[in-house]
Amino acid sequence: MAPAPLPPDTAPTKRITAPALERILGREFRVLDHGFVRVVDYMGGDASIVQAARVSYGAGTRPARDDENLIRYLMRHRHTTPFEMCELKLHVKLPVFVARQWIRHRTASVNEYSARYSILDSEFYIPELPDIMSQSTTDRQGRGAAMDATEAKQTRAAMRNDARRAYGRYMEMLNENEDRDPVDDNRSGVARELARINLPVNIYTQWYWKIDLHNLFRFLLLRADSHAQLEIRKYARTILDKIVRPWVPVACRAFEDYVLGGAHLSAGALDTVKRMVAGEPVTQDDSGLGKREWRELMAALGRSSV
Amino acid sequence: MAPAPLPPDTAPTKRITAPALERILGREFRVLDHGFVRVVDYMGGDASIVQAARVSYGAGTRPARDDENLIRYLMRHRHTTPFEMCELKLHVKLPVFVARQWIRHRTASVNEYSARYSILDSEFYIPELPDIMSQSTTDRQGRGAAMDATEAKQTRAAMRNDARRAYGRYMEMLNENEDRDPVDDNRSGVARELARINLPVNIYTQWYWKIDLHNLFRFLLLRADSHAQLEIRKYARTILDKIVRPWVPVACRAFEDYVLGGAHLSAGALDTVKRMVAGEPVTQDDSGLGKREWRELMAALGRSSV
Amino acid sequence: MAPAPLPPDTAPTKRITAPALERILGREFRVLDHGFVRVVDYMGGDASIVQAARVSYGAGTRPARDDENLIRYLMRHRHTTPFEMCELKLHVKLPVFVARQWIRHRTASVNEYSARYSILDSEFYIPELPDIMSQSTTDRQGRGAAMDATEAKQTRAAMRNDARRAYGRYMEMLNENEDRDPVDDNRSGVARELARINLPVNIYTQWYWKIDLHNLFRFLLLRADSHAQLEIRKYARTILDKIVRPWVPVACRAFEDYVLGGAHLSAGALDTVKRMVAGEPVTQDDSGLGKREWRELMAALGRSSV
Amino acid sequence: MAPAPLPPDTAPTKRITAPALERILGREFRVLDHGFVRVVDYMGGDASIVQAARVSYGAGTRPARDDENLIRYLMRHRHTTPFEMCELKLHVKLPVFVARQWIRHRTASVNEYSARYSILDSEFYIPELPDIMSQSTTDRQGRGAAMDATEAKQTRAAMRNDARRAYGRYMEMLNENEDRDPVDDNRSGVARELARINLPVNIYTQWYWKIDLHNLFRFLLLRADSHAQLEIRKYARTILDKIVRPWVPVACRAFEDYVLGGAHLSAGALDTVKRMVAGEPVTQDDSGLGKREWRELMAALGRSSV
Repeated sequence: MAPAPLPPDTAPTKRITAPALERILGREFRVLDHGFVRVVDYMGGDASIVQAARVSYGAGTRPARDDENLIRYLMRHRHTTPFEMCELKLHVKLPVFVARQWIRHRTASVNEYSARYSILDSEFYIPELPDIMSQSTTDRQGRGAAMDATEAKQTRAAMRNDARRAYGRYMEMLNENEDRDPVDDNRSGVARELARINLPVNIYTQWYWKIDLHNLFRFLLLRADSHAQLEIRKYARTILDKIVRPWVPVACRAFEDYVLGGAHLSAGALDTVKRMVAGEPVTQDDSGLGKREWRELMAALGRSSV
Repeated sequence: MAPAPLPPDTAPTKRITAPALERILGREFRVLDHGFVRVVDYMGGDASIVQAARVSYGAGTRPARDDENLIRYLMRHRHTTPFEMCELKLHVKLPVFVARQWIRHRTASVNEYSARYSILDSEFYIPELPDIMSQSTTDRQGRGAAMDATEAKQTRAAMRNDARRAYGRYMEMLNENEDRDPVDDNRSGVARELARINLPVNIYTQWYWKIDLHNLFRFLLLRADSHAQLEIRKYARTILDKIVRPWVPVACRAFEDYVLGGAHLSAGALDTVKRMVAGEPVTQDDSGLGKREWRELMAALGRSSV
Repeated sequence: MAPAPLPPDTAPTKRITAPALERILGREFRVLDHGFVRVVDYMGGDASIVQAARVSYGAGTRPARDDENLIRYLMRHRHTTPFEMCELKLHVKLPVFVARQWIRHRTASVNEYSARYSILDSEFYIPELPDIMSQSTTDRQGRGAAMDATEAKQTRAAMRNDARRAYGRYMEMLNENEDRDPVDDNRSGVARELARINLPVNIYTQWYWKIDLHNLFRFLLLRADSHAQLEIRKYARTILDKIVRPWVPVACRAFEDYVLGGAHLSAGALDTVKRMVAGEPVTQDDSGLGKREWRELMAALGRSSV
Repeated sequence: MAPAPLPPDTAPTKRITAPALERILGREFRVLDHGFVRVVDYMGGDASIVQAARVSYGAGTRPARDDENLIRYLMRHRHTTPFEMCELKLHVKLPVFVARQWIRHRTASVNEYSARYSILDSEFYIPELPDIMSQSTTDRQGRGAAMDATEAKQTRAAMRNDARRAYGRYMEMLNENEDRDPVDDNRSGVARELARINLPVNIYTQWYWKIDLHNLFRFLLLRADSHAQLEIRKYARTILDKIVRPWVPVACRAFEDYVLGGAHLSAGALDTVKRMVAGEPVTQDDSGLGKREWRELMAALGRSSV
């Protein structure tokens, strides 16, 4: 049989490939008003996790244990190193305040657009109306109730107006036209690294971001969580749903089953659950748990906390 | 003899102490207009470097080699692990755009003030007049010539004005007084995590930053360098001069002699230097070096590049 | 009142001190037959965790929330960065095969005794009789039943004999006496770095090991666990019980309650528990859990898995 | 034109490929007597370095600056982050004492064959005759003169004999045949994790090792250096010559020119060189350099140090 033809814009490789990820390589998935996430490159797939785990177990691996079970076993028991054997490189466009949260994940490689070298575009994140909310009254760090529509509209208009002003000032300070000549010949213009310090943190930046799958799961655990700020959560959900799932479907399902969707019980909570499972009625008082922890446990068990 | 009395506000410790650092523990060293650096805690000193190196060499260490020579030998030969045995914890107040450069050093621990929880103070970095410069014409990322005094003053006034406006808008959006009650009862106010996205990157933040001495030297090498942006350079110089030097005087001198003050020669540059030292006249053409590298070498040797 | 006198062998410090740890600073806690763990230095304590967390929360922290509750909250919700603000430096003597497992924890600094420089001592780990066991029949990587006493004794004798032979050969190859002169003038002797490659992995080495508290807890979670090899588990238990508990009693208790003593439930396990708590009888079959996971869950709940 | 056919055992990919590396993917390059290095997977190539650097420079990049010059500029100026954007995964078989040096490079991912799960093969590193040398008399940690042939032969024979004995004892302790049944029905056999503690560090192990190009260069700098032990040097040279050079030819040449082949001059050495280049005669005495540093500088300049 004649060998299959090589599709256009592709090259042959002997490496492990993830066909579903190949199909979306380079495609921009929109996030927020001007942001995106797109896959630039990747290494490995579900098969790489198995391959790395098997070198550890050597001849000792049961032939009968199939790959999916092995991956799920590794995830359940926090054998994290085989997941480090897959690597993902993304191109991300994101507001600076999101970038500041994102960069806290230290086990990644980053190349960011430099506003010391180049002039930033006039793109600012202006939240959609439903995302403009009041301070939460129960959670010290989050959003609470939806806002009155008029007030939300005013807020949005104010942000849009402020962005326009800030960018105008930026261009005025730079005093450069497209050919890098002065717009106003009587002024020398301010250095780029200085002019940009006046810009707000909702301006967009972009970067290449490379991370291994284990650390990516950790990123997703923290940033797809309801305690993360809404904006970074949208990036995390996009990465999880649009990219990680097609890339490593088995590992992704294991992550969702065992890590993202589960719950951690403390020693005291576990003890409480044991008693409840045995049919014993337990109250917060006799559980030995603090009020807050009791409330958290009842929420995890889907029970009223009273 | 009676034991020495314990000075007030101190406790006795059996750990290695650095008396010169103890004297400035907690003292704020001012940087920029509202920033500072202060030592919160530290571990070890020059003696810790020697102690760790000696465990590697074991009985094999020549008794005659004294501590200073050992530290200098380690620095010269890039034996970096003993320098990791000292640790420094700083409290730093710095503009957000400086924090964004600083955080790129990944081998450190950070706890930053959170504008999701708390309200930011009205403190913005406004550069001093001599620090307001034009774009460099030779270096794509830096400042160049001083600016015309009038234009610099206008820039400064504009920045100050913009900061005031931005903070006013922030407070208006928050709509909270000191008791967290609404200022205007007819508005619910915007969540803190959202109101702050409108603030410019010259607003001040603060953090605790903990790093080991090896990685601190690497930070200082890159950030005290003339290619670093002026503002972060001021922090780096303060840390080097006011904190690292009194803390680990021997290691600091070795760092300045062998790393900060030296120069790295490429294979080609080394070859050129060998020929020059032998008295041979060498030109860029017959050196085999590119134009840019030749210029860099001549600069390092303090010679005209023509 | 006159200031308290400074105890002998101590110096005054303004740093946070942990008096209970000061008392055991430098003391060797024996592990295995020739090993030990001793504290060389430390930075911070429970108060440092609180101090770092408070910089994040800023003025936003409820004054009423006391330090212990704050630490427990941080631990429960995996806010790990404040725990990175404490640092511990240990001197450890341990067999090479234990060192090989230990070093896999990458976020630590290490200076190890070098057998390229220096001659190793004749100290080998020979397990106690009760620790000599057969291969487990259920766990592919662990020990199982106790051995017949005679066979265990023979094993121990064989190990002791082999160690003696190996060390004899090492000394013979080195051909050095204490003054580094040849023992046998007719032989030149083999280089140290080469002679030592013949030595077994139960020989002892030693190192300085420095790690922050967050990563130390992670080390303890994995190495105090029943799946870890018995020998490294003994080190982990000693560090936990003798060192971490006196050093940071509040954080240590939180770690034991929320991490070490708890259990992680997967999405499926959590669902099963919810049904059981609601009084519904659930079997493995209708739980949707795999056999192995069902067994693990029943074990965590202290119930028979049939 | 019809699309090119897809070669056998390959799949199409849109990723950056390195054709010269594809050709050797999976091929074992022998190192030492039983060791090897082979490429399992890779991500990126020279083009990825350029791609990442350009995101930083954005529109600010001079179109004229070509890719090779850009890579060389990045290397010369220690702009390390774009080199982190390439990733290499190797399968390595290596003696345990080499593995112990190798693992000190912490910024890598590793999955090692586990002797707790599986039985080790009878493969031990026995040095070739020319590699068996005496202790250096000038370097405290290295090999010196060649040995007398008879003594070298005796050493080799002794090592071979010891390896055989050690493996025999290992099998005896395990008391397992290929079907995992006891060889001697009267003995239960020792657990694998315990039986292996008696094996010498010249036994071979194997692992998957994944690292980015920046950290790989750092590994090669330290391990291809003449101060590294001969055995690990052979691995480093093989990786450099057989794998990195075909993979990223431009970056590899820049690394050799600017890092591996160059020399670092201290502030004092640079000052001395300046004076020598100016034709001034300089002696150690009036150079201000220590004896050892003077000797090192003269060696770097290819001059006699007297």
